Amino acid sequence: MEFKINKARFDQRLAELAKIGARQDGGVSRLALTDEDKAARDLVVGWMKELNLQVHIDQVGNLIGILPGKTAEEPVVMGSHIDTVPAGGRFDGAAGVLAGLEVLETIQEQKIQTRRPIAVIAFTNEEGVRYRTDMIGSRAFCGFLSPKQAYAARGTDGSNFGEELKRIGYAGEFLCGSLHPHAYVEYHIEQGPVLDQQQITVGVVTGITGISWQEVTIEGQANHAGTTPTAMRHDAGLAAARVIVYLRELANSLGENQRATCGTIAFLPNAINVIPAKAVFSVDLRNSDESVLMEAELRLGDFLKRVEGEDGVSINTVQLARIQPEACHPDIITAITQSAQDFDYRHRVMMSGAVHDALIMARYCPTGMIFVPSKNGISHSPAEYTSLDDLEAGANVLCHTVLNLSKR
Amino acid sequence: MEFKINKARFDQRLAELAKIGARQDGGVSRLALTDEDKAARDLVVGWMKELNLQVHIDQVGNLIGILPGKTAEEPVVMGSHIDTVPAGGRFDGAAGVLAGLEVLETIQEQKIQTRRPIAVIAFTNEEGVRYRTDMIGSRAFCGFLSPKQAYAARGTDGSNFGEELKRIGYAGEFLCGSLHPHAYVEYHIEQGPVLDQQQITVGVVTGITGISWQEVTIEGQANHAGTTPTAMRHDAGLAAARVIVYLRELANSLGENQRATCGTIAFLPNAINVIPAKAVFSVDLRNSDESVLMEAELRLGDFLKRVEGEDGVSINTVQLARIQPEACHPDIITAITQSAQDFDYRHRVMMSGAVHDALIMARYCPTGMIFVPSKNGISHSPAEYTSLDDLEAGANVLCHTVLNLSKR
Repeated sequence: MEFKINKARFDQRLAELAKIGARQDGGVSRLALTDEDKAARDLVVGWMKELNLQVHIDQVGNLIGILPGKTAEEPVVMGSHIDTVPAGGRFDGAAGVLAGLEVLETIQEQKIQTRRPIAVIAFTNEEGVRYRTDMIGSRAFCGFLSPKQAYAARGTDGSNFGEELKRIGYAGEFLCGSLHPHAYVEYHIEQGPVLDQQQITVGVVTGITGISWQEVTIEGQANHAGTTPTAMRHDAGLAAARVIVYLRELANSLGENQRATCGTIAFLPNAINVIPAKAVFSVDLRNSDESVLMEAELRLGDFLKRVEGEDGVSINTVQLARIQPEACHPDIITAITQSAQDFDYRHRVMMSGAVHDALIMARYCPTGMIFVPSKNGISHSPAEYTSLDDLEAGANVLCHTVLNLSKR
Repeated sequence: MEFKINKARFDQRLAELAKIGARQDGGVSRLALTDEDKAARDLVVGWMKELNLQVHIDQVGNLIGILPGKTAEEPVVMGSHIDTVPAGGRFDGAAGVLAGLEVLETIQEQKIQTRRPIAVIAFTNEEGVRYRTDMIGSRAFCGFLSPKQAYAARGTDGSNFGEELKRIGYAGEFLCGSLHPHAYVEYHIEQGPVLDQQQITVGVVTGITGISWQEVTIEGQANHAGTTPTAMRHDAGLAAARVIVYLRELANSLGENQRATCGTIAFLPNAINVIPAKAVFSVDLRNSDESVLMEAELRLGDFLKRVEGEDGVSINTVQLARIQPEACHPDIITAITQSAQDFDYRHRVMMSGAVHDALIMARYCPTGMIFVPSKNGISHSPAEYTSLDDLEAGANVLCHTVLNLSKR
């Protein structure tokens, strides 16, 4: 390829942004709409202005920087977020926003004029840590959530979204829903181990996972662990264990993109010599294909019925969350793959097992994602790490992908 | 049989004792060496004296009432305990002590003179609730625990065994270890569901369970439930579930007397979207046959090694308790069975899945146990219940068993 992004400049911006909310252990805590978030926003908006982008702050605080094109056609949009989890890393979200800025600066340096405008967006409250609805910014950007609904969100710290947004000076006037992208491309660290373990530089995301979260409650009968013969037991804990073992079978039987996890569990009364009367545990099912995700839910339901009958227990489930997966757009998958090939980077198609702003955007406009490796798959941790070479490679692919999509 | 015990009188004593520490819900709270325990002891000692028994209080507060025989040979001893768990029932322990008293009164009424003395003992702190070493009274009675060791026991409420024993006036002078029974027969409610479900009146206990308590800690690797492919997981929670499912297989493969239970569990970090890094759970293995209990421990150990290899986790176990089972003495099993047959009571042999003073006594002298049904198997609960007919039947069997053993 004739040119690349400026690796050192990209790295420097990452380092500068990471100072805001920096923790002693190298991590970052920059929750949405806090003072740290405000400082980070000021920095990013400053950089947007330095690049002479058209800067807009929309009604829910999304930061939008637009590099005008030769026409006023719908822009090609890059984006991610700059809020973090409480003890997060330097790359989750931030890398995507700063890669976008770097791409725009590179395009300017190369004096390339595209037909379509190209924009970069930093979406508000992606993490869903301070305000429980995650991806509030992208949801409102697309009009799936009204600004009023967003303002009403109550924080886990008792704060109010609307008040905090105003307090930090980021309740903008740019109307949500007024900008419809021609395409949305999100650059993000993988937050999983696949690329790192397989020593692949670029992940071409074909779909973003759907999620089915259930809480399963099994009621059996408490009894003395010594005096109750096996045949007379209705052991809620054993029934739960059978389901957890089944979850693995389920994942194995539904292909590589099926994930099934039990992350939480509790027994009642939780006494060493008492057969559990009750077991409550969580089930996290994910797939990037809605029909397979539904199949997983159905099979789990059948298995729960079977356990009810065999173990003499009663089982109830509560759906805690249900997010429909979204496929990435074939044209964008193709454009990303082409760019990776042009650079001769090792790349592979994969699903995104975590949700991102791209999941929301995919319901609004053609969307794609570029993944770069996360060392040991670690994310949401101060230990989160992506090498500068990998960061650069992803940004190069992003650059040429958006140039391609914006009709250079 | 020519005579039976006095059912009404037995019932009346049970009712009177149950008033001490009575709860509004019908249950009883009478922890060892509390004021309630003192009041109950006073009542029992009073009844012993009314029956003109030789009454001894030994160094750890065991209440011993002896009906002299024609000789000074070793006595036949009945016994159990009158302390309860915090919200216990009316029958656990108390029924055994009062059945013993009732048997002695019946024998007196029948003007039967036995060759051997017959005694009834109420052992101190059987439950192990207030002072964690359970069966302190019987352990000290047999000389397996010195009075000094007993006195040093620290209560869960911060109290001291020796001080409390003195405070309630039951630090006696009768030497522990100075009385060796010819035989010990304990009458007890089953505290399990077998007799009730099978509509059998009398359980002839052939052995008292041994217990192996282990805490198992499995360490895997915390990872994102969405981004971590199945093949790259080291899921400590799944590994724990596999072990819990295996416990049931283990019980099924080692016969009716093998019990295997997981009663407690915890995952770390216990988050819905995080693969558990760590799982800690308890294993309660029981059998009345030491060789089979050891086999169960060995097979579990082998399975843990297998899971370590297959799941890429590391597993550590800590032995929390290990009690060796004891067989009941064939002569006493025979005597109890003979008495039950003479009365034409439905009876069956069975193991005791809970531990009792009889477990300790079996290491000291020939020992046996008579079980009566617990409704729905419930014990250690205000809902504990045994019908008066069943209570009477057990006491009749006890009466004729001790008469037989004491060479009427």
